[in-house]
Amino acid sequence: MTYAIGLDFGTESGRAALVDLSGGQVLATSVVRYPSAVIDETLPSTGEQLPPDWALQDPDDWVKVVEKAVPDVVKQAGVEAEEVVGLGVDFTSCTVLPVTSQGVPLCTLEEWRSRRHAWPKLWKHHAAQPVADRLNEVALQRGDAFLERYGGRISSEWYFPKLIEVWLEDREVYDECDGFIEATDWIVWWLSGVECRQTATAGFKAMWSPADGLPPTEYFEAAYPGFDKPGEKLGDTFVPLGSKAGTLRSEVAKKLKLSESTAVAVGNVDAWVSVPGVGVEDPGTFVIVIGTSICDMIVHPEEVRLPGITGVVKDGILPGLYGYEAGQAAVGDMLAWFVDRLVMDSGSYGALEEAAAKLEPGETGLVALDWWNGNRTILADADLTGAIFGLGLHTSREQIYRALLESIAFGSRRIMDNFEEHGLVLSEIVACGGIAERSPLMMQLLADTSGRRVHVPEVQEIPARGAALFGAVAAGVWDDIGSAIEATRPKRVRTYEPDLEAKKTYDRVYEIYRALYERLGRTEVRLMHDLKRIRTERRDA
Amino acid sequence: MTYAIGLDFGTESGRAALVDLSGGQVLATSVVRYPSAVIDETLPSTGEQLPPDWALQDPDDWVKVVEKAVPDVVKQAGVEAEEVVGLGVDFTSCTVLPVTSQGVPLCTLEEWRSRRHAWPKLWKHHAAQPVADRLNEVALQRGDAFLERYGGRISSEWYFPKLIEVWLEDREVYDECDGFIEATDWIVWWLSGVECRQTATAGFKAMWSPADGLPPTEYFEAAYPGFDKPGEKLGDTFVPLGSKAGTLRSEVAKKLKLSESTAVAVGNVDAWVSVPGVGVEDPGTFVIVIGTSICDMIVHPEEVRLPGITGVVKDGILPGLYGYEAGQAAVGDMLAWFVDRLVMDSGSYGALEEAAAKLEPGETGLVALDWWNGNRTILADADLTGAIFGLGLHTSREQIYRALLESIAFGSRRIMDNFEEHGLVLSEIVACGGIAERSPLMMQLLADTSGRRVHVPEVQEIPARGAALFGAVAAGVWDDIGSAIEATRPKRVRTYEPDLEAKKTYDRVYEIYRALYERLGRTEVRLMHDLKRIRTERRDA
Repeated sequence: MTYAIGLDFGTESGRAALVDLSGGQVLATSVVRYPSAVIDETLPSTGEQLPPDWALQDPDDWVKVVEKAVPDVVKQAGVEAEEVVGLGVDFTSCTVLPVTSQGVPLCTLEEWRSRRHAWPKLWKHHAAQPVADRLNEVALQRGDAFLERYGGRISSEWYFPKLIEVWLEDREVYDECDGFIEATDWIVWWLSGVECRQTATAGFKAMWSPADGLPPTEYFEAAYPGFDKPGEKLGDTFVPLGSKAGTLRSEVAKKLKLSESTAVAVGNVDAWVSVPGVGVEDPGTFVIVIGTSICDMIVHPEEVRLPGITGVVKDGILPGLYGYEAGQAAVGDMLAWFVDRLVMDSGSYGALEEAAAKLEPGETGLVALDWWNGNRTILADADLTGAIFGLGLHTSREQIYRALLESIAFGSRRIMDNFEEHGLVLSEIVACGGIAERSPLMMQLLADTSGRRVHVPEVQEIPARGAALFGAVAAGVWDDIGSAIEATRPKRVRTYEPDLEAKKTYDRVYEIYRALYERLGRTEVRLMHDLKRIRTERRDA
Repeated sequence: MTYAIGLDFGTESGRAALVDLSGGQVLATSVVRYPSAVIDETLPSTGEQLPPDWALQDPDDWVKVVEKAVPDVVKQAGVEAEEVVGLGVDFTSCTVLPVTSQGVPLCTLEEWRSRRHAWPKLWKHHAAQPVADRLNEVALQRGDAFLERYGGRISSEWYFPKLIEVWLEDREVYDECDGFIEATDWIVWWLSGVECRQTATAGFKAMWSPADGLPPTEYFEAAYPGFDKPGEKLGDTFVPLGSKAGTLRSEVAKKLKLSESTAVAVGNVDAWVSVPGVGVEDPGTFVIVIGTSICDMIVHPEEVRLPGITGVVKDGILPGLYGYEAGQAAVGDMLAWFVDRLVMDSGSYGALEEAAAKLEPGETGLVALDWWNGNRTILADADLTGAIFGLGLHTSREQIYRALLESIAFGSRRIMDNFEEHGLVLSEIVACGGIAERSPLMMQLLADTSGRRVHVPEVQEIPARGAALFGAVAAGVWDDIGSAIEATRPKRVRTYEPDLEAKKTYDRVYEIYRALYERLGRTEVRLMHDLKRIRTERRDA
C-alpha cells in the first residue's frame, strides 16, 4: 500500500489531503486556518497602517499548516509513515517573498521584520498596478513579442510588478535579499532543503519561456532605467512540473512523523494542479473550475498565441504540453450579489434554481453581460461592468437569476469560441468547483449553450489531490503525471448532454449576447468606461 | 357665488368635482366605480368569451356616474342648484361607440346587444393592431403627409383602426349605426341633447386637421378597398374646445337636481384637460402628468412637425394654440415592478426613496433605459425593452431604484431635447399626478437632469377641475379658457430648483444614456427586437 500527501495553500487557510495511490481516493483531510490570514490593514511587527491595495502573508502561518495538517491526515487515515512515499504542494500565485541565500524569509529576521517590503506579497496585493501599467505601456511601444503569450497584457499580480515595487520603494530590502521567490517554491525549499524553481510560475507569472528566457534587459531598462539585472532575484534554472525536488529534511521528517525518504515534488499552483486533480490529461478537454470566479484551463501540444487569455506556457500545467489559462471574473459572487444584495434572502438559492430550471431557453427575454467584476477573458478589462437587457413589467426574479446563469454560460462559450477560432478544438468540458457541485442547471446551460458534453467527476479536494499525484510521480510510483492521472482517474458520475433543440434557441440568443459583447466591450467601450470613471470620481469626491 | 362641475371618466370609475369659481378650489368630490369596470373577458349580454386584446365598457355605467356623483357633490358642498352655472366633461380617449341618429348606443338596443362590435371600445382595446399596422404601412408607402403630425405612426388605440375593425368584422353593425363617436362627445350629447363633436379628439385620434380635413379617401381605399366613405360615421363639423354645446336636457336637469339653464361645454379628454387643470396656459411650459405612465403636453402658437410625438393638433389642448402630446410608457409601473416583483416588499417604497435620496449624482455607476413597457416618445416602439448598465458586486437596491428614477428623468429630458431641437423652447416644468405628490426625489431629478425649475401646484382632482373650468367658460363666467386659468391658477407650493453642480454630472451621464438610447433604440434596434421575438415564440410554443 502506498500513499501520497498533497498540501494545498489557499488565501485564508491551508490543507493536507492523504491520497490512496491504488485508486486515487482521498482518505483524510485536515484544514488549518492561517492565524494572520490576509494582512491588509496593519503590519504585525510595527502596527503601522498599510497603504491601500496591500495584501501580505506571514510565512510562519504556512509552516504551521504543514506541521499540524500532515501528522493529522496520517493519523486520521491510520497509515504507516513508510507508506507515505511522496508529497506535493500547490499554492496561490503569484504569492512571492524575499529570502536569504539560505532560504530564510527576510521578514522572519529581526532587523528586517519592520520593513513591509520584506514580507510575502499575496497574489491579490494590487499596489503594484502603476508598475504593471508602465511595463505594459513600454512593451506595447517597443512591440515586444513576449506580450502575445499573455493575451496582450500582464497583471499587477505578477512577479515583476511586485519585484520592481520593492526595487523602487525599499532598495535596501531589494539589495539584501538573495532571491525573490514564489511561495510554492519556497515551501518546497523549506520541506526538502533544496531550492528548485519550476517552469510553471516562471512562465505564467515571470514572463519567462524555455525558448526565449526572460524579456530582454533593454525592455526592463526602458521602463525602469537602472533595473538592469532582471533575473538576479529569480534565477535562471527552472525545472518542469513532475520533477522531484528532493526528500524531506531530517528535522522536518521528524516533526511530521514521516520518513526522510519521502519524495518532495517541485511546487505547483492551485488552479493549474486542478487539471490532473480532476483526471484530465488530454488536449481537447476544457477544464472549468467554477466557484467565486472561473478559471479555465486546456493543454495542447502546440503553442498558439491568441488574444485575451491569461497566458500560454510550455510545461505550465502538464509537463510536455502547452498550458493555456483563461477565466471569468464574476460567477459565484455575481449570483451571491443577486441573492444577498438584491433579493436579500440567502435561503432562496434553492427555490431560485428550481424555478429558473422550469423556464425554457429564450423564455426570459433577457440577456446579461456577466461583467459584474470586469471581464477577464477575452477582453481583459477590469473597468467593464455588468448589464441586463430585455427587462419588462413581466420580468421575474427567477428569470433574472436564469439570465445570470446563461450569461456565465455565454461567457464560457465566448472563451471556447476564441480558442476554436484560433485552431484549438475543444470537444468536451470537465467542470469542478463549488458551483459544479451545487448547480445542475448551470451545468446543463454550459452544455446547451456550447453544444458540448459536460462531465462533473466524483472527486474532492481537487488541488490537493493533484499535488499528491505529483508527489507520487516524484516518488517514482509512476513514470510521469500522465500515467498517474490515467491510473487514478475519478469516475465521471454526472454527465450533462447538450439538448440540441435548446442549443438552436441559444444560438440565436448568443448572437445577441455576442453583438452586445462586441459593442459594449470594444467598439463602444468608452460608454462603460465613462460610467465607471464618473462613479469613481463621485465616490472619491 | 358661482360654481361649476367637472365630470371625469376614467378607466375603472368616474367622478364629479364641484369647483368654486371665485378661486378655483375644489369644494366636493364624489367617485363612482363602474359596475362592469373593464369588460375584457366575457360579453355581458351573451357570456361569450371575448377574443384576446379586447376591452369594452358599458355606457349605462357612465350614466350611473353622472346620476349619482353630480347630486352628491352639490349636496356635499351645500350650494344652490342655480349657483351651478356650468358643467364640463373629460373622458378617456380614444373610447368610441356606435350610436343611432338619436344618440342611442347600439349596445343598449335589444337587437344589437349580443353583437360585441356594438359595444363601446375602451381606449386600451388593442385588437385592432393589424388594422393600425396596415394603415401605417400604406401611409408610409404613399408618403402621406398627415403622418408627420403623429410623429410618424398612428396607434391601434385610435379612431380609424377601431372603426375599420367594425367594418371588417361586423358590417351589419357598421351599416346600422349612424355615428361612431368618442365617449366624451356622447356623454355631452346625453347631457345636453346636442351632438357636438370637438376638434381635439378629431385631431389627436381621427387624423383630422382644420386645414386638411381627413386623410384622402384614396388613402383609406388603398389600405381597405371598399372603405370609401371614411367620414360617414365621424361627421365633418368639429367645434373647438371652450365652446358651449348647450344646456342640460330638462329630464337630465331634473334627475341631477340642477337648473335647466346650466351650460354644458363640449367634451374633453382626461390627459389634455390637465393643462388648464394645473393652471397652465403659456407656451414654454412642459406639463408632465406622472403616474403609472407619463403624459407630456405643451401648447405653442406654431405648428412644428417632429418625430416620435403622439401628435400635434390645432386647438387640441387649448383653443387657439397647437397642442403637442408626448409620453413615457413605463413610470410608476416600472417602480412598482422593482418593489413588488424584485424586492418583493411593497412597504419598502419609503425606505428606498430615502436611501436613494442620499446618493450623489453619478455615484450609482448605473444607467438604465426606461423601456420596461416599450418606448412611447420619441422612438414610438412597443417592442423595446428595459436595460440596466454598470452593475457591479457593490450595486445596492437603492442604487438601482435611483437609477430607475434617473432613467425616467433622462427619458423626459430626451423628449424635451426633441422639442427644443425642433425650435420649441421649454423654460420650465409643471408636474402633477401621483408620483409628483409622492416622490420629491423624482421631482428634484427632473430639475437636476434638465436644468429646469419644476413646479408642483397645490391642486386636487386636476382633470375634473380642468373640465369644470371649461364648463364655466361655456356658461360665460369668463370669455375664454385663458382668462379662466388666470383667475383660478393654483399656488405653486413646491418648487424644485435645479442644482447646477448636479446638472454638470448628469450632463455626462446623460451623454451615455443618449448614446445607448440611439444604439439600442435605433442603429442596433434589431438586438432588442430579436430578443423579444425569441421570447414571444418560446412563450407561444
